[in-house]
Amino acid sequence: MSSSTGMIFSVSTFGESHGAGVGAVVDGCPAGLLLCESDIQGQLDRRRPGQSDLTTPRSEEDKVRILSGIEGGKTLGSPILLVVENEDTRPGDYSETIQTPRPSHADYTYRMKYGVSSSSGGGRASARETVGRVLGGSVAEKLLSDKHGIEIVAWVSSVGEIDAADVSVKDMVRTDVDKNAVRCPDSAAAVEMESAIKAAREDGDSLGGVVTCVCRNVAVGWGEPVFDKMEARLAAAMLSIPAAKGFEVGSGFAGTRMRGSAHNDMFVKKGDVLGTVTNRSGGIQGGITNGEPIVMRIAFKPTASIAATQKTADYHGGPAVLELKGRHDPCVLPRAVPVVEAMAAIVLADMSLIAD
Amino acid sequence: MSSSTGMIFSVSTFGESHGAGVGAVVDGCPAGLLLCESDIQGQLDRRRPGQSDLTTPRSEEDKVRILSGIEGGKTLGSPILLVVENEDTRPGDYSETIQTPRPSHADYTYRMKYGVSSSSGGGRASARETVGRVLGGSVAEKLLSDKHGIEIVAWVSSVGEIDAADVSVKDMVRTDVDKNAVRCPDSAAAVEMESAIKAAREDGDSLGGVVTCVCRNVAVGWGEPVFDKMEARLAAAMLSIPAAKGFEVGSGFAGTRMRGSAHNDMFVKKGDVLGTVTNRSGGIQGGITNGEPIVMRIAFKPTASIAATQKTADYHGGPAVLELKGRHDPCVLPRAVPVVEAMAAIVLADMSLIAD
Amino acid sequence: MSSSTGMIFSVSTFGESHGAGVGAVVDGCPAGLLLCESDIQGQLDRRRPGQSDLTTPRSEEDKVRILSGIEGGKTLGSPILLVVENEDTRPGDYSETIQTPRPSHADYTYRMKYGVSSSSGGGRASARETVGRVLGGSVAEKLLSDKHGIEIVAWVSSVGEIDAADVSVKDMVRTDVDKNAVRCPDSAAAVEMESAIKAAREDGDSLGGVVTCVCRNVAVGWGEPVFDKMEARLAAAMLSIPAAKGFEVGSGFAGTRMRGSAHNDMFVKKGDVLGTVTNRSGGIQGGITNGEPIVMRIAFKPTASIAATQKTADYHGGPAVLELKGRHDPCVLPRAVPVVEAMAAIVLADMSLIAD
Amino acid sequence: MSSSTGMIFSVSTFGESHGAGVGAVVDGCPAGLLLCESDIQGQLDRRRPGQSDLTTPRSEEDKVRILSGIEGGKTLGSPILLVVENEDTRPGDYSETIQTPRPSHADYTYRMKYGVSSSSGGGRASARETVGRVLGGSVAEKLLSDKHGIEIVAWVSSVGEIDAADVSVKDMVRTDVDKNAVRCPDSAAAVEMESAIKAAREDGDSLGGVVTCVCRNVAVGWGEPVFDKMEARLAAAMLSIPAAKGFEVGSGFAGTRMRGSAHNDMFVKKGDVLGTVTNRSGGIQGGITNGEPIVMRIAFKPTASIAATQKTADYHGGPAVLELKGRHDPCVLPRAVPVVEAMAAIVLADMSLIAD
Repeated sequence: MSSSTGMIFSVSTFGESHGAGVGAVVDGCPAGLLLCESDIQGQLDRRRPGQSDLTTPRSEEDKVRILSGIEGGKTLGSPILLVVENEDTRPGDYSETIQTPRPSHADYTYRMKYGVSSSSGGGRASARETVGRVLGGSVAEKLLSDKHGIEIVAWVSSVGEIDAADVSVKDMVRTDVDKNAVRCPDSAAAVEMESAIKAAREDGDSLGGVVTCVCRNVAVGWGEPVFDKMEARLAAAMLSIPAAKGFEVGSGFAGTRMRGSAHNDMFVKKGDVLGTVTNRSGGIQGGITNGEPIVMRIAFKPTASIAATQKTADYHGGPAVLELKGRHDPCVLPRAVPVVEAMAAIVLADMSLIAD
Repeated sequence: MSSSTGMIFSVSTFGESHGAGVGAVVDGCPAGLLLCESDIQGQLDRRRPGQSDLTTPRSEEDKVRILSGIEGGKTLGSPILLVVENEDTRPGDYSETIQTPRPSHADYTYRMKYGVSSSSGGGRASARETVGRVLGGSVAEKLLSDKHGIEIVAWVSSVGEIDAADVSVKDMVRTDVDKNAVRCPDSAAAVEMESAIKAAREDGDSLGGVVTCVCRNVAVGWGEPVFDKMEARLAAAMLSIPAAKGFEVGSGFAGTRMRGSAHNDMFVKKGDVLGTVTNRSGGIQGGITNGEPIVMRIAFKPTASIAATQKTADYHGGPAVLELKGRHDPCVLPRAVPVVEAMAAIVLADMSLIAD
Repeated sequence: MSSSTGMIFSVSTFGESHGAGVGAVVDGCPAGLLLCESDIQGQLDRRRPGQSDLTTPRSEEDKVRILSGIEGGKTLGSPILLVVENEDTRPGDYSETIQTPRPSHADYTYRMKYGVSSSSGGGRASARETVGRVLGGSVAEKLLSDKHGIEIVAWVSSVGEIDAADVSVKDMVRTDVDKNAVRCPDSAAAVEMESAIKAAREDGDSLGGVVTCVCRNVAVGWGEPVFDKMEARLAAAMLSIPAAKGFEVGSGFAGTRMRGSAHNDMFVKKGDVLGTVTNRSGGIQGGITNGEPIVMRIAFKPTASIAATQKTADYHGGPAVLELKGRHDPCVLPRAVPVVEAMAAIVLADMSLIAD
Repeated sequence: MSSSTGMIFSVSTFGESHGAGVGAVVDGCPAGLLLCESDIQGQLDRRRPGQSDLTTPRSEEDKVRILSGIEGGKTLGSPILLVVENEDTRPGDYSETIQTPRPSHADYTYRMKYGVSSSSGGGRASARETVGRVLGGSVAEKLLSDKHGIEIVAWVSSVGEIDAADVSVKDMVRTDVDKNAVRCPDSAAAVEMESAIKAAREDGDSLGGVVTCVCRNVAVGWGEPVFDKMEARLAAAMLSIPAAKGFEVGSGFAGTRMRGSAHNDMFVKKGDVLGTVTNRSGGIQGGITNGEPIVMRIAFKPTASIAATQKTADYHGGPAVLELKGRHDPCVLPRAVPVVEAMAAIVLADMSLIAD
């Protein structure tokens, strides 16, 4: 069941990059939630290829169709099937990878594990698989928003060597994030990032970066001790996104350099409950949410599929020169933003129902 | 089932820090594995409190007893119950936390979630819970070692601001790691780290740091696409350890600053199979192991329980001054090493049986 | 995840009786299996409404479409999405159940549990949900047949008071089962059953019965001790079918009336392995298959939706007279046969991969 | 994880019949439940060997010890470890089964599956494994009783050819069930059953029978559609008990002989909610509880381990004459009663928390 995640609110994705379509089944969504295609289409559009000149030119409308689980605009409590048909598939683009696996891609490991390969694109390792995540995540987000008023916002905080200035995790909204194609709220940094991405593309090369994500208005008490700690679930969700190489919550790696007396978040009365003065815990203490915003950062490596010539080996170990023709993003970061939000939403929805 | 992890090879831990005992049940371990208490005691001793003057003075023998699943020195394929009795419990040490939750600890969130609290220590959020992880991990490690020749070695690569020099992930062994009490193979850095930890303790303060872990001789093809990618499972396992705040695999956060052409691991013939020239992938491509060493780094925050006075709030929101008397590690890093190894072993054992 | 079953080979079904379509996602099917629509269509046709004058006149072509997981006629190891569009939906047929729940149907419990109801038919409690089971079961069956030579055959062994004579579980094949519309291999009994079903329909009434199912060529060693015993999994699978009220394996309830000396299956050499002289164990001993045929019987109650007038209560507790207009089978048994086979296949496929 | 059951309220059992001990870990029990050893000991005593002259003479005190999860007489929400040490083990009793597998027992299938065998008794297939079930079930029962007022009562309704007269499922209580050693509330039948059991033992033989179980005061709305229907979960739980061969709920197999008009349970106002006039549904409609008592019957085959001479084959297929010396129950039914109650409680507790 490697394509399913979640215990109560579960999302199962399906579909190959160059097959008939991609999508997701959401099971365990409570009945009575108002839900229609337009609740989902927004995030799909933010994930869509071809949305700006920074992304792959592959052209996909990515229109979602709901086949089950809804009647009269409300969820029935039954599985919700969400399908997006593929349109602009070009399996032929990948002929050069039949003999030679792409470096740092899944071609080699898939071939070794399964014996057969999807002849086109990365099959289930393709970025197109993330359509299913966004579909499931949008349902999760609607549930979290309607029932708990939760807001989930992610943005690009670095691309290559360019770091955005600090962003207020309290106030950032998606419309601000979307003010530029890079999805970096620091507009000065965004301009630099955009140039860097275009330069990399010119060189047939690619860039990585970091996405920051904040979840606000999360209730106290979500997350389970020991192995299902909130941060453990979030880490798994984020590291399951293609190209993700790192995860940190709250103070993360930087916090390891502080002393405890400086790092500890002192409690303080906030309304009727306790809050903390600082939030180095990132909204989670002992694996359980404490009501402060959950803040996390996810590292994405530079896209493995690059146009530049690569001297590598073919499947038999012989020397090979690889020149890829497929259409790829020179930097996944802008389109990773809604995917990170989707994964956060899926985890929170599940943990909210477990904690209920 | 928040205290269980693993789908085929599963480990369920139990026990409170100041109750009768702690331990684990391992289910799904194949029959016929040679296993006895001494296979487990070694890692328990490395995790044991009181092993050096850098750790908590709490004195626990931590002798494991196997109650089921073994006959004639071999596993039966049935659940293996492993119990360690608690000896040096002092619940009274925690009386000051009844009114005031420790900052950045689980006291507050546990109280809010469960209504009751373990009156003593952190209950299931205590570091003592990790005994169960080491028990389960030692069984996993025996299986991986006997069946696949896998070696798992972790060490301390930073404490506070002090970084160890680069360590060869190819050759490092546990005896080298254990040459000093800090468990840092760079002996010059280790001396500095030791001083820093002692200085922090003097000040009633604490330090964080980073553990690096390498898994060698892992077969090609372990890990499942999409949500059960090897790095996703490892990330969840590591972030479930108390005080962990970050995880990275291979090039991690640093890799986000490289271009794809510099980052990609070129393939090359290694014996009968393909290997890679570099290993920025950290042994995993597309979520599936590629035969190169798995390399990961885990961030641990400074210990939250410190002796120094903390100005915080009590459960009612009133101002409170907290002075803790419990016995705590000024730095969890040296004892986190076998826990990280245990979690890596548990994940690998499970993924190996899923891939079979 | 109540619409998913299976740990390694998992089947998730979706779809409402009177929505856009129904179907299943199969995850965990090994790569490289030859599979196309025609491998699935056969059992769908045996389950299809309107196939004989004994079944509901609802007319559905029930043509399966595979959207993912297959390329070049082979499975990729990725999730297989199987969809059947609904055609002859008549939600209006169910208007009389808005005020008054059907006796012995799911209307009342669904309304109480979910607050909302599918306005038409039984929603997920409808027999139409079993399309997804047959889809998933057909993939499972192809895997079991190609890899292990397993044969699964079910038939109707009683309808109402009419019992079929004993049928040889060793030789029965589906073509023999399908020689009459009732799917009872005892043709004399079949004639009586057919008359009884038609008579019940004339009276606006319905009949129940028993399906027997045999699985041949099952390997030794499938099934897991304690809670995942083969018979436990099979019992759950069968009792999850709409209208199922009982399950027995091997000697079942009748065996409780024997003494142990008469009941025990003595071992005997069969080729290179042990077999048993008799098979009162039904192919399973201690929860694990022993190589003899698995034989089980499943009880189905008479269809709850009947045309005859029923004096019952409406949702408010007031007296109500219910006269149903929807199209229903007077006896589910003939169409239950492929559903029972599908559930057996799903369980065996999963247990075979767990045991691997 | 074949020794674990339950999704939210989970019970994992461990221990060999002739090892150091047996027991269970209960995870997911809500915090704040009053619980102590005496809440558990009662059912253990009803399951204990040697409690009457109808059972095996093996002498076990079966005293439970709680090692974790409880403080101050209340559950903490953390895993509860329950251990019963074995005392009267006689591994030597089983020497005759080293060469020759017991007919209709798990000896052969375990040997084939695991390669090694527990040298003594049935290992995990032994009836002693059910101690863990009763431990977990007693915790579940305390939760169901305290929180929902649920009553679970089982009794022996047939032994061999002797059937008890109908028993009122509405009023039966355990003290009535325990009025005789057979645990059959029809005292006339009980006398006959007792004689029959003793006669079978005299002959070195054994008897089977049927246990009926009722669960009263179950809320409306427990059980999940499609694969986790309440009856599916109960069927799996009951068929996982050693020697169980059949399960029926409500009208069961007998109901298949009725017409729908006679079988349907008409609704009627009962207080503020709907009830049904009859209860052929056995308290479950569409897989979801309807508030009426859950009634089920479980078939147990005659004990496979008998003293009488059996002509069978040894592991190599050669002819063998088996004469067993181990201590076995001539009829498991009286001791199966608390095990059936335990399994019912475990399923209900889990489903209650899923439905919450």
